[in-house]
Amino acid sequence: MTLKLDTDDYRIAPGAKVDLDRLPTRYDGPIDKQEARQAFEQLRDRLVELQELMYAEHKRSLLVVFQAMDAAGKDSTVRHVIGPLNPAGVRVTSFKAPNSVELGHDFLWRIHEHTPRRGYIGVFNRSHYEDVLIVRVKDLVPEKVWRKRYEHINAFEKMLTDENTHILKFYLHISKDYQKERLQRRLDRPDKHWKFEPADLKERARWGAYREAFEDALSRCSTKHAPWYVVPAERRWFRDLLVMKVLAGKLESLNMDYPRATFDPTSIVIE
Amino acid sequence: MTLKLDTDDYRIAPGAKVDLDRLPTRYDGPIDKQEARQAFEQLRDRLVELQELMYAEHKRSLLVVFQAMDAAGKDSTVRHVIGPLNPAGVRVTSFKAPNSVELGHDFLWRIHEHTPRRGYIGVFNRSHYEDVLIVRVKDLVPEKVWRKRYEHINAFEKMLTDENTHILKFYLHISKDYQKERLQRRLDRPDKHWKFEPADLKERARWGAYREAFEDALSRCSTKHAPWYVVPAERRWFRDLLVMKVLAGKLESLNMDYPRATFDPTSIVIE
Repeated sequence: MTLKLDTDDYRIAPGAKVDLDRLPTRYDGPIDKQEARQAFEQLRDRLVELQELMYAEHKRSLLVVFQAMDAAGKDSTVRHVIGPLNPAGVRVTSFKAPNSVELGHDFLWRIHEHTPRRGYIGVFNRSHYEDVLIVRVKDLVPEKVWRKRYEHINAFEKMLTDENTHILKFYLHISKDYQKERLQRRLDRPDKHWKFEPADLKERARWGAYREAFEDALSRCSTKHAPWYVVPAERRWFRDLLVMKVLAGKLESLNMDYPRATFDPTSIVIE
Repeated sequence: MTLKLDTDDYRIAPGAKVDLDRLPTRYDGPIDKQEARQAFEQLRDRLVELQELMYAEHKRSLLVVFQAMDAAGKDSTVRHVIGPLNPAGVRVTSFKAPNSVELGHDFLWRIHEHTPRRGYIGVFNRSHYEDVLIVRVKDLVPEKVWRKRYEHINAFEKMLTDENTHILKFYLHISKDYQKERLQRRLDRPDKHWKFEPADLKERARWGAYREAFEDALSRCSTKHAPWYVVPAERRWFRDLLVMKVLAGKLESLNMDYPRATFDPTSIVIE
């Protein structure tokens, strides 16, 4: 059985102009939930193997970036897709509003500290892209400052890639109606209240401005070395499958191998 | 069905003098593998819930320390017991030989940087205990320096606990024969060669000195607030079960609750 899923269909080609209204928020293709689950499990098992290989090889690292509107499912994607990996080789960083020390530096300073070292998978739940998203929407720095950041981001990501940190970026795409549903759920369940921030509603009111900012980020910063994927995120089983397939496909493409022993294993006697 | 497992049987009482030769390396009690697996899965599911609660509550953190002879299964324990948790709330730190910057500081400096922040579970694969283990066995600092460290460790761990970082410490106990078996396995499997270090055999030759150093560390640093558990580690299903039960039991005992909303959920209308 071949899975009818070409991940390139969801990748933003370098230089393409993104119009989010024309990209699906809900998967509506030939794969059903059952098939997706099976394929997910196979890819997951392979990804776990590839992670160990990358750890053993100790030559490169993988950086996975998640961005989205509130309540689109970033946390849940991390739990489902990153959760199965060996925790010893994974670092998840959730970026919040920068503190005063961080604000005393350039916008990439606090990001750089958390890029994954060799053998590791680093996961960013929000990232340096906030500096051209919320920062732009809320006018936190002048336009002439954030305008230049797209280029700085591309240069930074190119440097990382050239130094063997591979980069994959996912925008979890949902509709405004779907967000309402998810936020309402947080209000309805006492065990989810802690995830609800009344202030989030102010961000929701700026939906159009955020969409525009996302479109610019996706259009300007999807490069050959660090592509953006726009993931239809309203069916979670498809969202997880797509992200998993991109991750496994990337590590597979590196043709890694276990390092050769620097000693002769047959000559060693354990007393 | 009640699980016949009192984790206190494996806890070193404060002030007790540890004789490792008298403590089992291989579990030989009434629980069978099948029962252990079922109990493990139940405890795992509960631990995942408790982890979310701790994250939501944002009041305290948990630090889990693993120490053992080489090839005792530290990596594997982390994979099995910590693996099921939400990776966004976990940080595993594997301590290697200190680098020159770290050596320029007191021995707790590099450790302190990695203690878990509120809501997080921090896992140490090796730890500050190396500074009274390998450092002592290989004479890396004078005895008058490492002698004082037991007390410094206790004070440090007490401070952490008083500041709401709870601490659990596990010594994975194996026999010298079992280590031989595991090391041989690394030699026999090409995909495990990368885990084999010929230099590890030199450490193996110092088995007795290490045992003595471990006995001192376990005897002097098992406190009420930061207990050591000596885990019979040669049956992996029992090892995982015991560690899981201690973790879940600790978080259960904290009687955590989801934080109350600081707003009235019924008054909020999502436009």
